[in-house]
Amino acid sequence: MSAQPPALPESAQRVIRDLRELAELTSDANGAQRVAWGPVWRKARTWFADKVAKDLGAKVEADSAGNHWVTIPGQSPNAVLVASHLDSVPNGGWLDGCLGVMAGLEALRRYAQQTDQPVTLKLVDWADEEGARFGRSLMGSSAAAGTLTLDDVRGLTDRQGITLPDALRENGIHLDTMRNAHQELMRIPAKAYLELHIEQGPVLESMKKPTGVVLGTFGVERHMVRFTGQAAHSGSTPIPMRRDAFLAAAQFALAVREIGLRHSTPGANVVCTCGIVKVEPCIVTAVPGTCDISIDQRALDATVLAQMLADAKAAAAKAAQDNQVSVEWKKLWTIEPRPFNPRLLQLCEEAVREVTGDATRLPSGPLHDSAEMVPHMPVVMMFAQSSPGLSHCKEENTPEDCLSLTIQAFLRLVEKTLAANSVDLHRKKP
Amino acid sequence: MSAQPPALPESAQRVIRDLRELAELTSDANGAQRVAWGPVWRKARTWFADKVAKDLGAKVEADSAGNHWVTIPGQSPNAVLVASHLDSVPNGGWLDGCLGVMAGLEALRRYAQQTDQPVTLKLVDWADEEGARFGRSLMGSSAAAGTLTLDDVRGLTDRQGITLPDALRENGIHLDTMRNAHQELMRIPAKAYLELHIEQGPVLESMKKPTGVVLGTFGVERHMVRFTGQAAHSGSTPIPMRRDAFLAAAQFALAVREIGLRHSTPGANVVCTCGIVKVEPCIVTAVPGTCDISIDQRALDATVLAQMLADAKAAAAKAAQDNQVSVEWKKLWTIEPRPFNPRLLQLCEEAVREVTGDATRLPSGPLHDSAEMVPHMPVVMMFAQSSPGLSHCKEENTPEDCLSLTIQAFLRLVEKTLAANSVDLHRKKP
Repeated sequence: MSAQPPALPESAQRVIRDLRELAELTSDANGAQRVAWGPVWRKARTWFADKVAKDLGAKVEADSAGNHWVTIPGQSPNAVLVASHLDSVPNGGWLDGCLGVMAGLEALRRYAQQTDQPVTLKLVDWADEEGARFGRSLMGSSAAAGTLTLDDVRGLTDRQGITLPDALRENGIHLDTMRNAHQELMRIPAKAYLELHIEQGPVLESMKKPTGVVLGTFGVERHMVRFTGQAAHSGSTPIPMRRDAFLAAAQFALAVREIGLRHSTPGANVVCTCGIVKVEPCIVTAVPGTCDISIDQRALDATVLAQMLADAKAAAAKAAQDNQVSVEWKKLWTIEPRPFNPRLLQLCEEAVREVTGDATRLPSGPLHDSAEMVPHMPVVMMFAQSSPGLSHCKEENTPEDCLSLTIQAFLRLVEKTLAANSVDLHRKKP
Repeated sequence: MSAQPPALPESAQRVIRDLRELAELTSDANGAQRVAWGPVWRKARTWFADKVAKDLGAKVEADSAGNHWVTIPGQSPNAVLVASHLDSVPNGGWLDGCLGVMAGLEALRRYAQQTDQPVTLKLVDWADEEGARFGRSLMGSSAAAGTLTLDDVRGLTDRQGITLPDALRENGIHLDTMRNAHQELMRIPAKAYLELHIEQGPVLESMKKPTGVVLGTFGVERHMVRFTGQAAHSGSTPIPMRRDAFLAAAQFALAVREIGLRHSTPGANVVCTCGIVKVEPCIVTAVPGTCDISIDQRALDATVLAQMLADAKAAAAKAAQDNQVSVEWKKLWTIEPRPFNPRLLQLCEEAVREVTGDATRLPSGPLHDSAEMVPHMPVVMMFAQSSPGLSHCKEENTPEDCLSLTIQAFLRLVEKTLAANSVDLHRKKP
């Protein structure tokens, strides 16, 4: 190996070439098809392992949850982790997940080319971030974080009726030993966790910024709300005598948007969404008797999120009362906000500013594996602009100039983090 | 036959006994199963024909559309028609349709017992009022009225894939000659058309009235409205950057209710309903990209109905603009208001007042076969209270005291109408 890594723009070009090669190998006309635990995903991982062997002379190691690890050992076992995931949704885009893995590989290639490696650098390819086949996202990272409850997932089946344990077994993983990945993670003296991902939203594009510093992942409150009135004939029931469950839901949904706007402040947006709406009996001549509507609220501040939920409950109660219907709530899923590490945020901001001239901070609305790591180590993420602001579809994209700048900024962040931890190490060895 | 019909309360009891006998014969634990063109409906019609033969010594005659007619000939061919339908929705109630047919049979039995029959009295059992199997209601009466467009219905199929023409053929009807029923109807010098039905709504019950005088059937404007925005990730898309199709529909639906309330005046209520609501992609983590919502507006005054539709179109345009989405309208079905005959309304009011002490007027929100007859002859309807105000379900009911009073009032209306037409006849024969 040479003692000099290439210039950052050359490194970025190499990452983009790798991404195009992977897309060629694992996509069809509808997009990426690297669904976790399936043959195309395994093909992607084999392709990746071949690259690791060829470029680094290293081997990919699997933990008990099927996460793949590549290590450049340092003089100290203290480790910096770079991570993302190779799996995709069906008909996915060419960047979601694999951008972070391929940029991570380039970081390892560059580090291996340095004259010395004071600390250890590890790359993680998390298994089944998307949850596309069994509906449980962050599978591998939650096992490593110790938050995966086996009995919650044991009964999951895919559309063909194959159970999760059987699909895992096909990949050499045993459900009952998956959580050993937690002890395996805890044995690593991890000093930093860095994840590069596409934004998957329109914020950076609207600000004309290639790259963003991610403040943390939103906490999420996700519930189903059922309004129950009385189905009635649309012709024979005067409006004042109706108990229309849909109109209660409509009033609720509009109030929920206002709650989101009211709790948003400049630089600290929150979001509220009603995505599922189902009325019964859903016929043109019937006043709806029931309406099931979902609410998904997200914020980076736990106190704000709690207040948003309280406001939504009050809005639902008022909508029910105004329309003479009843209302019930059922929790679907919640997660607390996961703000990132202040020191790593600082390094990330420096790296982004040095490469792009500016550093925009934004929260992450979508969840990422990084959220699972926050309780265990210092974490930060960097976003590449999405343009259009879409993801989980073949239209997903980042313009090549933005992509190159963001990869350069991320490689710089890795180098800054490695350097910072090397300095720490030297300081501690007088 | 005796020369004296029984007292009205006895007649009413006989009708109620007939209705219970029919329910016993053609219902199961889920309700009435007399779906038009099927075996249970044919069984009901055979049972009815047997009664006609036994009680009147008369035969049931089918017209070209499968409507069944029973005639008590008078000295004049001038005819009073009493009508309703024996068919029901699946899992229907014990009164919808058959109440009018069985009360009509009793009217014929009473008329046959009179010493003389100056005018002709005809009973019609319309075929397929409900449209439950093929989705086209008022099938038999629209054929008779000349408003059935054969090419609109030729391709209809039921859930088993059986075509309407095949189902008709199984019942001895040929689609291409169905419209001959119109010439057949036009040959009858019909002077009045009387139809008794349950209200199917809560108005009379709320006023504690057993019986109502029906002013006419509402005109109906029925449309699908599609709002199209942009599906987006619920976590990554800030609220001000969204184009949420569902929130546009929610705003529209609430405005539509206000339109209904604004155009309602005491004694002249109108109704507006959004019954179908479908969002896409309908997942908890996605901002809805499209929302299809139905609107059904009804009023007895054509000018008011036109204004209501114009107001709804303006409300949809505003909702689209406010939410940065587009909107398209697609007409499903319309019918103009069908106000009933003033002279028959007067007779109906007298009959109801004489039996119940009072006469409440109300429009009919649901359509009835009577609407098809309005262009061709003087028409009036009478309603029996529904309690609960439900229909098309096994819970459909009219308390027996209300039912008895209403049947008595209807029989009195038939007798008044026959008498009025007999007087006219005598006047014209000096």
